[in-house]
Amino acid sequence: MTDIARIEAASFRLAGHALRTPLIGSDFLNEIAGRRVWVKAECLQHTGSFKFRGGWSAVSVLEPEVRERGVIAYSSGNHAQGVALAAQRHGVPCVIVMPADAPRLKVENTRAYGAQVVLYDRAREDRDAIGTQIAEARGLSLIRPYDEPEVIAGQGTCGLEIAEQATEHGIREADVLIPCGGGGLTAGIALALESRAPGLRARPAEPEGFDDTARSLAAGAVLHNDRLAGSLCDSIVTPAPGALTFPINHRLCGPGLVVSDDEALRAAALAFKRLKIVLEPGGAVALAAALFRPNEIAGEDVIAVASGGNIDASLFQTALTRFGE
Amino acid sequence: MTDIARIEAASFRLAGHALRTPLIGSDFLNEIAGRRVWVKAECLQHTGSFKFRGGWSAVSVLEPEVRERGVIAYSSGNHAQGVALAAQRHGVPCVIVMPADAPRLKVENTRAYGAQVVLYDRAREDRDAIGTQIAEARGLSLIRPYDEPEVIAGQGTCGLEIAEQATEHGIREADVLIPCGGGGLTAGIALALESRAPGLRARPAEPEGFDDTARSLAAGAVLHNDRLAGSLCDSIVTPAPGALTFPINHRLCGPGLVVSDDEALRAAALAFKRLKIVLEPGGAVALAAALFRPNEIAGEDVIAVASGGNIDASLFQTALTRFGE
Repeated sequence: MTDIARIEAASFRLAGHALRTPLIGSDFLNEIAGRRVWVKAECLQHTGSFKFRGGWSAVSVLEPEVRERGVIAYSSGNHAQGVALAAQRHGVPCVIVMPADAPRLKVENTRAYGAQVVLYDRAREDRDAIGTQIAEARGLSLIRPYDEPEVIAGQGTCGLEIAEQATEHGIREADVLIPCGGGGLTAGIALALESRAPGLRARPAEPEGFDDTARSLAAGAVLHNDRLAGSLCDSIVTPAPGALTFPINHRLCGPGLVVSDDEALRAAALAFKRLKIVLEPGGAVALAAALFRPNEIAGEDVIAVASGGNIDASLFQTALTRFGE
Repeated sequence: MTDIARIEAASFRLAGHALRTPLIGSDFLNEIAGRRVWVKAECLQHTGSFKFRGGWSAVSVLEPEVRERGVIAYSSGNHAQGVALAAQRHGVPCVIVMPADAPRLKVENTRAYGAQVVLYDRAREDRDAIGTQIAEARGLSLIRPYDEPEVIAGQGTCGLEIAEQATEHGIREADVLIPCGGGGLTAGIALALESRAPGLRARPAEPEGFDDTARSLAAGAVLHNDRLAGSLCDSIVTPAPGALTFPINHRLCGPGLVVSDDEALRAAALAFKRLKIVLEPGGAVALAAALFRPNEIAGEDVIAVASGGNIDASLFQTALTRFGE
């Protein structure tokens, strides 16, 4: 089980390896949102997303003789890169199971971090089964993307930083909006805030049509998405809330927020113009909710986690053409 | 005269107002450069460039009764925004004299920060004369973009951070490449490094055809540019090295580096892909030099200041189309 002690231990292991990402903002975004918007720029993290935190946490905690045999992960891309770079920097082998329709950049990057990439069909094959099979055959340690206590603890280090940075800026009460797929980042941050900044409340943000966590929180039980393809926010599309993450999020999170793909792209265009950071659609949903759902948020401040920036140039150009003004 | 004491005083005034920008990197960029590349992401600074540091330093140091009458600045855009936001946050009037061909985004932003914008013809009019005239007529304090000790001190706070961050990463010897127009940022950083990190050496980076500082350093005397228009790197095009900045840079800097507009755009595309930050061409020349002039740099590490990100969406799309791969 992940708790604050495990998050603190992960923070100790990540020190000097993960970047303490800045909390940034812009008066122009404040004006749109009608309150102060603080953006935790986790796209600047190594590999371009927060996933490096969980990857490093999980790889670094393995016993050396286990770690030496190697690790394996399955991922739509960002977890893949996070685990691959963590494995490479530990000098151990890494296999990544990725959907065949993942963005080209993510597949290329994962290979460039020294991992062997195994592709699968997101609509017809079960990545968990594939991962488990290869792991057993080769003696690799499987690092699940969110239902893994050490991964949740690693993501929670982002929450420790948010708590510190909110204090530095005098923010005592605020919603913290978090892009949510399987819920590992949300759960890790929620646990960190519970302990370190109880006036801050974690709230998941999701794309329309893939809002399994928002619906599950409202229902008080795990509900599934109807489909697993068709969102620009591919990085945060998962079948359902995790078995480990949902109980944490159900206990600690406020209601989920839901935005459209167009709103995510518009938020990415505004982040380009006003914050000078690059966001992928899935990484922009929390910022989109902060900007475009003002009536669903309370308080003078809102914190939005900008969780990843691994977007192909062509899609980014589309966002700028449509919403770059 | 600017010295380390004045930079430290500026740092004290900037605390809690300017962002401590992160030092970021990517294995992919290291591979291109053949050494470790550290990028000081000053594009994340308020107003999208380091100029907020100098603007805040100069506005905040004025006597209250002088400051209340207001300030004036002339600038191709980034200094304008830095001074305008600093004035707005101090609650004092601000007039900005800008070239009529400045990027639209910079003019709009300057107005949005509450400043009155006066446009002039960059090729035929003298901005210094215009600025002085308005300042005298209205009793405003003129804040020059680089030949002003408190502005140089403000930019020097970026150098204090570089010295600290280099120490954190164990970097003892390295060239620090700095986009250079009038030389205020270069001089401020050079002074800070002289005192705090003597193993780090400041070196200006400029666009081809507008390399007045590189040529002046080589000649040991102030030389002018032949022209003042025609570079994509508009933000760092000035007539000649400054009267205050050149003696500092001549004493402290290593040789200048020169890159083409295309190399600056290619560096901006790589910063998009690998660092998830947005750079304008003028803000990307130091990174371009770090990546594409490996034989002109010594040592295992190089630090490149990414000084600004105020680029129109259309030009950024051009960079991605041509170099986004």
